[in-house]
Parts: sequence; C-alpha cells; structure tokens
Amino acid sequence: MSNPNLLAAFLETAWQHLGRGVMDSRSPARYPTFATVSAKGMPEARTVALRRATRTGAFVDVHTDILTPKVEALKATPHAALHIWLPEAKLQIRMTTSVEIVTGDAVADDWARIPNASRVSYGTHPLPGLPIVDMYDYEKPPLRERFAVLRCWIDQIDLVELADRHRRAEFHRSDEWKGSWRAP
Amino acid sequence: MSNPNLLAAFLETAWQHLGRGVMDSRSPARYPTFATVSAKGMPEARTVALRRATRTGAFVDVHTDILTPKVEALKATPHAALHIWLPEAKLQIRMTTSVEIVTGDAVADDWARIPNASRVSYGTHPLPGLPIVDMYDYEKPPLRERFAVLRCWIDQIDLVELADRHRRAEFHRSDEWKGSWRAP
Repeated sequence: MSNPNLLAAFLETAWQHLGRGVMDSRSPARYPTFATVSAKGMPEARTVALRRATRTGAFVDVHTDILTPKVEALKATPHAALHIWLPEAKLQIRMTTSVEIVTGDAVADDWARIPNASRVSYGTHPLPGLPIVDMYDYEKPPLRERFAVLRCWIDQIDLVELADRHRRAEFHRSDEWKGSWRAP
Repeated sequence: MSNPNLLAAFLETAWQHLGRGVMDSRSPARYPTFATVSAKGMPEARTVALRRATRTGAFVDVHTDILTPKVEALKATPHAALHIWLPEAKLQIRMTTSVEIVTGDAVADDWARIPNASRVSYGTHPLPGLPIVDMYDYEKPPLRERFAVLRCWIDQIDLVELADRHRRAEFHRSDEWKGSWRAP
C-alpha cells in the first residue's frame, strides 16, 4: 500500500528547496526556467529569479519589467510552467501555474525592498530584445512604473527524483496537495 | 560601429558550450530545459539530455520515449524552446527550434550507440506520468520501438551574458547566423 507520509515528505522537501531558493542566491532553486506560450502559440523559456515561495496559498513570485516579451505572452496565455533542476539532490521540481500580473500600489512594498542596484532591471532603454547597433548601446534607468510582480498560483507540482531508483509524484491544488505516485 | 567579429565570437562560444554538453555529462549544457506547448495550449517544461549538437545544419538532438507527453505536445505544435543557463560563464543560451520526430530505421544507429543501462529510459510501464499505487510500482524494460530522436532544427539562438556589463545578441537561420546585438 502507498504510504501517505512518504508523499507528504516528498512535497515538503520541494518546498524546502523553494524556500532556500528565495533566501540564497547560490541555490540552484533561485533561478527557475520560466516557460510561457507566446501570442503566436510558440513555446518560450527564460531564466527568472525566485522572489517569494509561500506554501500557504501555494504561490511563488517572480519580478519582471512589464515591457518584456514574457508579459506579452502572459497576457495571451496567463499560465507559466516553472522548472527547477537541483543537481545535488537529483530532483526536478516542475510547477504548473496560473499567473496574475500585479502592478501599481499593490507592489509598492515589493519595490521598496529592492536594492537600488537591482532596480535597473526595470526600465531598460531601448526595450529588452530590440536591436541595437553596438553591444552596449543601452541604458538601464530604474523605472518604478515598469516593475511588476508575477504571482504564480501553483495548480500542480510534479517531482522527479533520479536516485538509484527513480520516483515521481504529482500534487494538485484541486485535491489539496494530497498527491499521488506516478510512473517516472 | 558594431564589430561583426565580436558577434561571431559570441556565437562561437555558445556552440563550444553545446559541444561540451554533448561530450561531458558534468557540463551544465548537458541538461537543457525543453519547453513545449501542450495540445491544450499550455506551457510545459522538463529536463532533457543533449545528445548531439551540429553547427553544420544547425540542429541539436534529444532522445525520448515516443509515448511521453512532450511528443504529444510536439505533434500539436512542432516547436520547442531549449534553455540552458551556464552559471560559471553567466551565459544564458536559448534556442527556438522546429522539431522533427525521427523513429524506425532512421534511428537504428543512434539506438546502437546507447548503452544497455540507458536503454531502460525507453519503455517504462505504466506509461510515464500515469498514476501508480506505490512509488516503485513500475518497470523499465528497454523497448527499441519506443525510442525516438527529436531533431531540433534551430531557427534562432538568443544569448545573454551577465558579465559586469550585460550583453545580448540574437542569431537567425534566416540571415545565415550573422546576428545582431539586442538590448539586454
């Protein structure tokens, strides 16, 4: 028979890694790959930094410049897949999420906590991805009005651990994270 | 003025990392994140192993069990975004690709080169992702007929280097990989 404690412990391990990712910029959980679907229906992926991971409510936060292609993609398809690979733990954490784009007064506290040196990530001119003549033909002024929090409400967590024997489990918000083992 | 040699050198660096990823399982370029769009239009991402990287022709190969969700996704949308983050080089390599699913006699040579111990990745029973009662309720027989090569023809390569000053460039098959600098 399946032991529910083992499933709960597996999920707990994942949340511990997410928490460490938020606190420690050297943790591999700090930098998930953030996959979206473009307005044209094409897959896109880029590195993001994990800024918050809250088990109560089950969401993670990512910060972004609102004028980047990932926000355009999220306006068309408000979902993101977050992917983390932890080499030492041999653990893959995948989250399927519904993304809320939060701006304005609601993110004033988040903005206030960002060090000045990091605020330059929000305001690149020309816009990120636009062609420039020489490699350093850009400026990075900090622009409060271009800052947004992507609140990623987790719908599903999929864990795969590549230990001597592989194990895999899926956890869903819809069944209150009870989870089930899956063929790996 | 833009120096075309610097652009060419930047792209060359990326291909060197891809080549190392194929040869060395300890290289972070060995394990790209492979993002697709599901048949329902949702983003999906998982770790894959880089098996070939060929600059002539500009493609990379990934191996898969044909009965996994990523192949289902590719049948609906035959495109994948491959994402690699190289922590030491502080380099993000992103590839936008058109994916050809190769099976049968055309992959006989690839199958022949796979060590017996690795062939068990192709044939999991029950199918990967299906629910099982206990965590080890699965078998992994090697099944030649479930092996496929995902040939990812690169349409675009996007490089972002987070050195003291950031630099970013995009290279397209359509302009013969000449490339252009982009705002990072």
